[in-house]
Amino acid sequence: MIVRKLLTDGIVRLTGSTATGGKPRQMLEINARARIGVGIQLAFEAITLVATDTSGGVIARHQIDGAALAPPEKVTRRIVQGYVDFVRGSGLDQTTIAGVAIVAPGPIDQKAGRILGPPTLQHWRDFPLREEIGSGVGVPLLVDNDAAAAGIGEFWSRGVSRHETFGSIYIGSGIGAGVVLDGALYRGASSNAAEIGHVTVVPGGRECFCGNFGCLERYAAPSAVLSEASANKRAFDDLDLTFEVERNARDFDVLGLAAINGHAAARTLIQRSAVYLAEGAVTLANLFDLDALILTGPGVAIAGSMYTRAIRTRLESQRFARSTHPISVELSANPRDAAAIGASSLVLQSTLSPGHGPVLHRSARDRG
Amino acid sequence: MIVRKLLTDGIVRLTGSTATGGKPRQMLEINARARIGVGIQLAFEAITLVATDTSGGVIARHQIDGAALAPPEKVTRRIVQGYVDFVRGSGLDQTTIAGVAIVAPGPIDQKAGRILGPPTLQHWRDFPLREEIGSGVGVPLLVDNDAAAAGIGEFWSRGVSRHETFGSIYIGSGIGAGVVLDGALYRGASSNAAEIGHVTVVPGGRECFCGNFGCLERYAAPSAVLSEASANKRAFDDLDLTFEVERNARDFDVLGLAAINGHAAARTLIQRSAVYLAEGAVTLANLFDLDALILTGPGVAIAGSMYTRAIRTRLESQRFARSTHPISVELSANPRDAAAIGASSLVLQSTLSPGHGPVLHRSARDRG
Repeated sequence: MIVRKLLTDGIVRLTGSTATGGKPRQMLEINARARIGVGIQLAFEAITLVATDTSGGVIARHQIDGAALAPPEKVTRRIVQGYVDFVRGSGLDQTTIAGVAIVAPGPIDQKAGRILGPPTLQHWRDFPLREEIGSGVGVPLLVDNDAAAAGIGEFWSRGVSRHETFGSIYIGSGIGAGVVLDGALYRGASSNAAEIGHVTVVPGGRECFCGNFGCLERYAAPSAVLSEASANKRAFDDLDLTFEVERNARDFDVLGLAAINGHAAARTLIQRSAVYLAEGAVTLANLFDLDALILTGPGVAIAGSMYTRAIRTRLESQRFARSTHPISVELSANPRDAAAIGASSLVLQSTLSPGHGPVLHRSARDRG
Repeated sequence: MIVRKLLTDGIVRLTGSTATGGKPRQMLEINARARIGVGIQLAFEAITLVATDTSGGVIARHQIDGAALAPPEKVTRRIVQGYVDFVRGSGLDQTTIAGVAIVAPGPIDQKAGRILGPPTLQHWRDFPLREEIGSGVGVPLLVDNDAAAAGIGEFWSRGVSRHETFGSIYIGSGIGAGVVLDGALYRGASSNAAEIGHVTVVPGGRECFCGNFGCLERYAAPSAVLSEASANKRAFDDLDLTFEVERNARDFDVLGLAAINGHAAARTLIQRSAVYLAEGAVTLANLFDLDALILTGPGVAIAGSMYTRAIRTRLESQRFARSTHPISVELSANPRDAAAIGASSLVLQSTLSPGHGPVLHRSARDRG
């Protein structure tokens, strides 16, 4: 019965039959392209669209201008247009698209399908994101946290055992994390879990938008590292840094490249950021008692090895459960697209295994 | 079929039949005493034994001298004797005892049934706790973390909804926590999760046995508060403090009582400890995105309200998800016995709902 349903839906197909003595057996294969998920990462610097199939492979990728400071209505129209261009340009079969997940930095209101305004996207706070995009793209939609999505994406793409307690730390404009338990993202009460960027690393330190002081992301995120660099511009005269907030991501790549090439001042800054991040990693590992930790996000695309080294060193000497089991610390294979790929995995997970992920919503206009 | 099995086991019993027109119906009631769990908390200051029935009610309680610095072999004999006296003295029906859970501060090696040596019980590190006690008491046994056990105990005794993301912080000789998800304790890779006592609150601060520096429990646990008091003994001249490490728990009660009665120096110390604890609470709430938080353990038996107040204030202004949902912060109804009661709940959970808790082991001698 289950096989017949999968055959009807095209998820499984017959590829012939065998008869090695006894009753002939039907041969089946999974048709990975029968269901396609689309993930869209909404960020200040860029908006990334990817499509993945059920094997987890990326079958198309597209990037358009970031949200920057433009009004949400305008950015939304650009996203819808970008989606239409993406589907057409990649030759995707529209009938196979199971849905779209749009991911952004937290906090998010997943039930309402809104983002609640991280610092770079404050003006999006009351914007009905899911409804606006959903009615434009005409397929079911969900809104989720980018760092959490990256976590489930890394989990699937690595073929990790379901029984591993798997964590990932995401460095984008801020710092977030995702924890995967029994093959599903750990959600907590409101899908705002694993907020490692808001662990205090400097008590009474810099004020953070979250209401707390001295949060990890105010010391270790690319924007924090770059504002330290800008306070000592002469040390970075030889590097092509713009020090424009809108170009933080690009400047951080330049700084990271200099650091791994031995630029002393750049190394010092990145190293300091890595030591702070390692402190957050110890807390994440201790609270979830992790087996594995992946570093991902655009912030580790260039100098990621400096971060993994600092984290491994700290976990080896300071992790609470180090005498009972090891922990692996690895770098993502595709850190820049991790959140968009993870978003796409969320769509497929909520389609193929309902109840194990967030719910895809049809927009009111679409339903009507 | 299921009912028949429950009837045979005595867990459910017939209480008559009704006939309100139509087919007569058998009336069943749950026999709460059909299965009894015994929880034993092994601590430096005292060893507590409790028995609970399936309704979660405590039906017997017994306390004997703590482990202190005595050799584990000697303490183990005392525990076995204490168990025998407890069962006999309380008139418990031995055939209904489903098992015993013995809980102690982490880290623990749950598979091997050993404790890995918290500061107060360092000499227990390689001692085969489960085997030694198990063969003495002659019922299945498990070894677990005291703070985690307290978490599940608080969860059951409060009748919390399964869908709540429930956390508890335990203040004993150290500081630990328990998180209950979907009605079961969150375990992580090795049952050493939610180690909130080892969140850094003073970067580069006091060295901790866990390998890290500046851990919460080095600033907020009773022992830490008392060593601050002993550095300024004159301010506490009017209080009957012994400043003996072995009497930390008793001294902390004295200090707590003075604090709630307005003793200025005592208030300052407890308040400072509460502010540190509140920082740990923000981290726990942010990483697990909690709905509810309970404070428990002997450390909050007297001045608990000062701790809940400090935590509520911090969570209201600094919790990451505060705009999406509230969090309740409450004090345990029975903080001193919470770990032993929770241990007992673990026994019943692993008996009545196997797969949802740790496994009870029969000792080799018992099996043979």
